[in-house]
Amino acid sequence: MPETTDELLETLTEQFSELPGLGPKSASRIVGHLLVERRDLAESLVRSLSSALKCAHQCPKCNTLTTAGELCPVCSDPARAADVICVVEQPADQAAIEASVAYRGLYFVLMGRINPIRGVSPADLGIGKLLARIRTEQVREVVIATSYTAEGETTAHMITSVLRRQYPQLRVTRLARGLPVGVELEYTDAPTISAAMADREAVKS
Amino acid sequence: MPETTDELLETLTEQFSELPGLGPKSASRIVGHLLVERRDLAESLVRSLSSALKCAHQCPKCNTLTTAGELCPVCSDPARAADVICVVEQPADQAAIEASVAYRGLYFVLMGRINPIRGVSPADLGIGKLLARIRTEQVREVVIATSYTAEGETTAHMITSVLRRQYPQLRVTRLARGLPVGVELEYTDAPTISAAMADREAVKS
Repeated sequence: MPETTDELLETLTEQFSELPGLGPKSASRIVGHLLVERRDLAESLVRSLSSALKCAHQCPKCNTLTTAGELCPVCSDPARAADVICVVEQPADQAAIEASVAYRGLYFVLMGRINPIRGVSPADLGIGKLLARIRTEQVREVVIATSYTAEGETTAHMITSVLRRQYPQLRVTRLARGLPVGVELEYTDAPTISAAMADREAVKS
Repeated sequence: MPETTDELLETLTEQFSELPGLGPKSASRIVGHLLVERRDLAESLVRSLSSALKCAHQCPKCNTLTTAGELCPVCSDPARAADVICVVEQPADQAAIEASVAYRGLYFVLMGRINPIRGVSPADLGIGKLLARIRTEQVREVVIATSYTAEGETTAHMITSVLRRQYPQLRVTRLARGLPVGVELEYTDAPTISAAMADREAVKS
């Protein structure tokens, strides 16, 4: 009896469905889109992903993903302020901060966050490397930019306590909590409103 | 002045963000995931997508996407009932029906739906090919399985009227509307409840 499923298409769909944020339905839609309407996009994806696989590596200084030379473009840019390090969980967070154009210092990408349940400890996040950079690069401030989630808070707390112990003089900051810009107050969740209330600022006239 | 963005990673992220259902944020997360944690998945994706690009084509009989021989596995399966054709919008819909194991006939995949605003007319959906199949394959029933959305309804209406005109004896059906299985009544939207009420069935004791 012949197979009534197409093995290659099924494998391809399964592979797409393993990507973060995708499931079997969205993967199936993507495969149809790529092989019928956007073969050009499928071809460029194959090309870029193959090249990226060949040359992508983690920056030895900040851990971020890069396909440029040894150091990533941010670490090798002499115009960036070298005395401030922003600690983020993953390259996507770094990309979000870069897109805001509100920060001109350097980064340290944890490539994860503390998770006692999955057994991710401070040592797994390579905090030793961050400590070494603070010592050798005469860092004046560390901005902790982890999310305000349970895991993000634990990670921030752990990093802060290590930094306080080793470098009591270092300025350690975190991104402000508050109302998201462009969102109605009535749709903002209670913990965010309560944080925004606690950190309310005097209006500058 | 050196570039502070990584061109290849940016290109790759942009390409992923063009896939249906993805945006810049999810694309950025996917790229990090593929190049750091799941290089094995990235490599298999490149392999399967390249092979699929080489051999994927539309089945000349039902239009669905296939990487098998000339005809797709469903059309070439002699065990399928040849006198029923189920009309769907896209391969993903066909996959959903196949997964339900509730249908053993053949298919006709429209590869789109009527959309007067984007200028998609009945002719663009190749209805002529469906009409020819009904004539030559002695089809007894056509099951229209378009979605219950404005565009799906328009498409179903158009196909029904063409079929009625050309083949007054043909049985034309549509998938039943009603309560989704496994969803609480209180979370079901009003048009669905009203359709389920109108089509209510006598309880078989």
